[in-house]
Amino acid sequence: MILFQCDYNEGVHPRILERLISTNEEQTVGYGEDEYCEKARDMIRRKCKDSSLAVHFLVGGTQANLTVIDAALRSHQGVLCAVSGHINVHETGAVEACGHKVMGLASGDGKITAMQVKDAYNAHVEDSSFEHMVQPKMVYISNPTELGTIYSKQELQELYAACKECGFYLFLDGARLGYGLAAPDNDMTMEDIAANTDVFYIGGTKVGALFGEAVVISNETLKKDFRYFIKQRGGMLAKGRLLGIQFEELMKDGLYEEISAHAISLAERLRGAFEAQGYSYLVKNRTNQIFVIMPDAVLEKIKSEVGFSYQQRVDETHSAVRFCTSWATKEENVERLIAILERV
Amino acid sequence: MILFQCDYNEGVHPRILERLISTNEEQTVGYGEDEYCEKARDMIRRKCKDSSLAVHFLVGGTQANLTVIDAALRSHQGVLCAVSGHINVHETGAVEACGHKVMGLASGDGKITAMQVKDAYNAHVEDSSFEHMVQPKMVYISNPTELGTIYSKQELQELYAACKECGFYLFLDGARLGYGLAAPDNDMTMEDIAANTDVFYIGGTKVGALFGEAVVISNETLKKDFRYFIKQRGGMLAKGRLLGIQFEELMKDGLYEEISAHAISLAERLRGAFEAQGYSYLVKNRTNQIFVIMPDAVLEKIKSEVGFSYQQRVDETHSAVRFCTSWATKEENVERLIAILERV
Amino acid sequence: MILFQCDYNEGVHPRILERLISTNEEQTVGYGEDEYCEKARDMIRRKCKDSSLAVHFLVGGTQANLTVIDAALRSHQGVLCAVSGHINVHETGAVEACGHKVMGLASGDGKITAMQVKDAYNAHVEDSSFEHMVQPKMVYISNPTELGTIYSKQELQELYAACKECGFYLFLDGARLGYGLAAPDNDMTMEDIAANTDVFYIGGTKVGALFGEAVVISNETLKKDFRYFIKQRGGMLAKGRLLGIQFEELMKDGLYEEISAHAISLAERLRGAFEAQGYSYLVKNRTNQIFVIMPDAVLEKIKSEVGFSYQQRVDETHSAVRFCTSWATKEENVERLIAILERV
Amino acid sequence: MILFQCDYNEGVHPRILERLISTNEEQTVGYGEDEYCEKARDMIRRKCKDSSLAVHFLVGGTQANLTVIDAALRSHQGVLCAVSGHINVHETGAVEACGHKVMGLASGDGKITAMQVKDAYNAHVEDSSFEHMVQPKMVYISNPTELGTIYSKQELQELYAACKECGFYLFLDGARLGYGLAAPDNDMTMEDIAANTDVFYIGGTKVGALFGEAVVISNETLKKDFRYFIKQRGGMLAKGRLLGIQFEELMKDGLYEEISAHAISLAERLRGAFEAQGYSYLVKNRTNQIFVIMPDAVLEKIKSEVGFSYQQRVDETHSAVRFCTSWATKEENVERLIAILERV
Repeated sequence: MILFQCDYNEGVHPRILERLISTNEEQTVGYGEDEYCEKARDMIRRKCKDSSLAVHFLVGGTQANLTVIDAALRSHQGVLCAVSGHINVHETGAVEACGHKVMGLASGDGKITAMQVKDAYNAHVEDSSFEHMVQPKMVYISNPTELGTIYSKQELQELYAACKECGFYLFLDGARLGYGLAAPDNDMTMEDIAANTDVFYIGGTKVGALFGEAVVISNETLKKDFRYFIKQRGGMLAKGRLLGIQFEELMKDGLYEEISAHAISLAERLRGAFEAQGYSYLVKNRTNQIFVIMPDAVLEKIKSEVGFSYQQRVDETHSAVRFCTSWATKEENVERLIAILERV
Repeated sequence: MILFQCDYNEGVHPRILERLISTNEEQTVGYGEDEYCEKARDMIRRKCKDSSLAVHFLVGGTQANLTVIDAALRSHQGVLCAVSGHINVHETGAVEACGHKVMGLASGDGKITAMQVKDAYNAHVEDSSFEHMVQPKMVYISNPTELGTIYSKQELQELYAACKECGFYLFLDGARLGYGLAAPDNDMTMEDIAANTDVFYIGGTKVGALFGEAVVISNETLKKDFRYFIKQRGGMLAKGRLLGIQFEELMKDGLYEEISAHAISLAERLRGAFEAQGYSYLVKNRTNQIFVIMPDAVLEKIKSEVGFSYQQRVDETHSAVRFCTSWATKEENVERLIAILERV
Repeated sequence: MILFQCDYNEGVHPRILERLISTNEEQTVGYGEDEYCEKARDMIRRKCKDSSLAVHFLVGGTQANLTVIDAALRSHQGVLCAVSGHINVHETGAVEACGHKVMGLASGDGKITAMQVKDAYNAHVEDSSFEHMVQPKMVYISNPTELGTIYSKQELQELYAACKECGFYLFLDGARLGYGLAAPDNDMTMEDIAANTDVFYIGGTKVGALFGEAVVISNETLKKDFRYFIKQRGGMLAKGRLLGIQFEELMKDGLYEEISAHAISLAERLRGAFEAQGYSYLVKNRTNQIFVIMPDAVLEKIKSEVGFSYQQRVDETHSAVRFCTSWATKEENVERLIAILERV
Repeated sequence: MILFQCDYNEGVHPRILERLISTNEEQTVGYGEDEYCEKARDMIRRKCKDSSLAVHFLVGGTQANLTVIDAALRSHQGVLCAVSGHINVHETGAVEACGHKVMGLASGDGKITAMQVKDAYNAHVEDSSFEHMVQPKMVYISNPTELGTIYSKQELQELYAACKECGFYLFLDGARLGYGLAAPDNDMTMEDIAANTDVFYIGGTKVGALFGEAVVISNETLKKDFRYFIKQRGGMLAKGRLLGIQFEELMKDGLYEEISAHAISLAERLRGAFEAQGYSYLVKNRTNQIFVIMPDAVLEKIKSEVGFSYQQRVDETHSAVRFCTSWATKEENVERLIAILERV
């Protein structure tokens, strides 16, 4: 059986594994205050071309989201996001458990616009009874989104400008950031992202690491006391160097980009095969997640050989399902999947 | 200037005021453990024809909502309600501040259906990744709703049956309950409501009292330790007897019904006048709130003489606004308002 | 039976009742935005000789405490107070329910010192692992304290200076403030309190009102968005004018001072009687609460005639109990109590 | 420089590393639902001789503590623990951030007694105003404690009996459990611990793993929906198999015991050296943490060669400091440390 249901089915990229092995017996201080973390932070700052950035390493995405959002908001404030946003749907209410409302904005493709942000601002300021409503204070986007789509540089710039205008923080969830930056239709760099958000994170878990997300903060207010929040929310890893070592390696010699390009290239290959079979998409995108609409009968036939994840029912006989590639996807498995698709 | 923007513009019904005056110098124990509260609880139990009900008096509606919901839910659980539900829109995230997600269901008229409840249940159980989503555990409805509509007895029975089937609590916010029960198209009694919910409250603030909501609990699990939650959330009134005295008087000699009938009768009079002028409604209802669509030009003309509340923009030249009657509305003011409407 | 167990056994001072009656049928806007509230705010600002103060009216003490503290602290911050502080002992964890640690400081008499505040600061800054501990950010004191003691002006000034030095907010719970200011050994005015705290409140519930606490904020940071917190925590009274009317009357013509002086004078009379009987105190003080140590046998004898509240066991045959006087205490009841004490 | 300040200075035990390497390229499902996790769960159940236990793997100790405690308590409930308990001191208010009061009990040696638990119960039930206080519902202990002491089997049995009597859950934090079980004065097995608690965890981070704590639940009520809490609090590791692989290896062929015995043997060697030098202890214990009182002058001399952690000031010229051994401590480093101690 070959698995395509997600981008975290395997362990870690061999180059990173090598470093974990070679450093295993060294003694370092804990909690991310070691030299590996310091070096990885520097490399990220350099990639973002901003030496003033604060960089913190967390273990996973939900942890990163809840910690950043809780650190940013006072009790009466909420966070705007697409209704399909990960924090709104798939984190078991992690943000609400910290006391904050997730304020969903309509979205068909997983993205939101500067106009929607301004409208939300106006809806909460023009109304004379605004004290009776949650005060939006942060905008959460993901890039790529949960539907695999990406923001253009202009879209991000407009969003950030709208946020500045409204007094909102802009937070970009980059759990799959590498795959977004490697997409054929992408026009942004990591530097662009650092320059057009208040805080974002560089996903490691889905892009080559065993685990780990690097939270990058440019907003001065958000930098203050951030380590307290990490500790309070259970995210301070005792052997913090594990995160530093992994991110140091990811940032070195273009590994992060190389890993991402590999996944995208295989996704494009797979996309070609789906299209050759005449399948259409739930949402069109060119990152490492493919949301394809298939007949239930076909899915029934292939499910003992191929792992995919169920997304949603489309009509009585069709469903949308997700196939993912990753840094670890083997070309031979892609070819096997294509052969299976051609056969059925 | 005459005010119709809400149903809490005045003080308290004269009969209740009389009792507050006559008992003022008595000494009683605090925190709702006095005899007035005990007597009021008994009267409510009798009106609901259920001697096993737990009854607690709280000061206001947001306080009642957040206390009931927090007492009912564990951290990973959420509450389903209409998107227009008061807890979703106008309580500054009070429920989220207690850690719980408010899960909005689509609704045009402020009501939700048994089918929507079952669908929500299925969407969170059939999906294999349900642990990644908030677990719904309570259904919140208001009757009348925030749009002045009411549930029929059959609708409530079906909702309650659906809740039982799904293992959800049903909670009815009755901030304006009296006006719902007095509506010409209502077919329920307070007994029906007690028998078809796990917990509900009888609104006092908007129906003749200075303040006060009587939370009525039939579900045994919800009864446990409820006073701890009241105290923790700041709702335990030191001079608790003030609530007992008010509810005792409201429940006595049909005062609650008399008050409600008065407001409904004047609302119907007003409705007749709006219809005579050819106005249409945002939502049609027959309780004490009238959501009428009017030309902005007309609103501009009358606003210095009449208080109303702005609801929403309808088109470029029309808005929906709200006019309320209450126990305290004077017939002469209704006639003045009608005269103004006819004049403009 | 005559009740001395607390200072909220009765209703409201007759002068205030008079105003509630005479204004009952007026129409005003809700939520504390009416003219009565505005006028009461002005009177409080004038009494504190500071026109820049923000004043908000809340219904009760626990509500005031949790709202102020939650509005002041970010998630990783806590509040320092005496171990006997009301927020640490008798509010069912209201502050923790908002996510904040109450950090108890040793205290024999209910008071804490500037030195303790500085020590707490040092203990959390000198330690290299401070990110692993809650960050103190506010100091909560009550005046009079839960044990009836009061701060001298110098003590308060020193505390406030220490807070400024450490970057802490100083919050004074004045649930019984009037009785503190009227105590024979007091050397402060309300102006002194406003000038030496960041936020405090003037208790109404226990000093003549039906209910109500006036939160007075001098710190600019704390003023921001405070009404959102009131609403979110369930403290925004629909008929907010009830609070305005009561505080306007309390602040007028020295009523607050007159009420307080009455209670203190009767407490002093009672203290004389206890001392004449040779009883000693758990804690010595001269406000309206008397914590006297009495033989259990005596308490057993008087308990059917007199209400008092049990404080704590002192030894095998003695307990400390509390007797309170209030604005409403009748001289004849004090004399009856003294007669009973002399008899047993 | 040789580090003794904590037991998480190094990476992972070589046998576990081997397994991580050999399984690295395998494809498995995520979130702990893979076969490695399943197998590790079974091995833990077997070691505890109870096939009904629920076992969940979390990344770190603070995360485990906050998740277990939040899953166990309703909003009005708190957790009892020694004042020195990790949750009370060194988790930045993680438990309070979930809304629950940590109720500290006096303790000189890091342990609490059955009698203290019963007293806490009585203090909250006998008092008539118990609704005004947090309701204790869980008892948290650590074994070894934060001061390196351990409970005897009889002490644990008595604590558990007291908890059952009072209706409290008993939760044992076993972050260093292996070292406790390997101590010369220990008389318990892991089976004893499973049989005398409602929930406990087996620490991996400090006992040979890269990271990981195995939460073991025997109480049926606590088992329900536990994975929701893990996800909500950010503790659900995407590549969950990393935890399964590590715990499978730890539980295999006595590795956990072997690792622990190694650390204890070196700690005993070190203890002998400290005693030979005439040093005394802050608290006496025989686990892997040594809390020794040393002259500041000596500490000053050795600090450039040896890492230790500062515990507290003892008198003007002495401090208590901590030296730890672990699975990874090298005998040669212990000898070097001893040589340094003899030299100064």
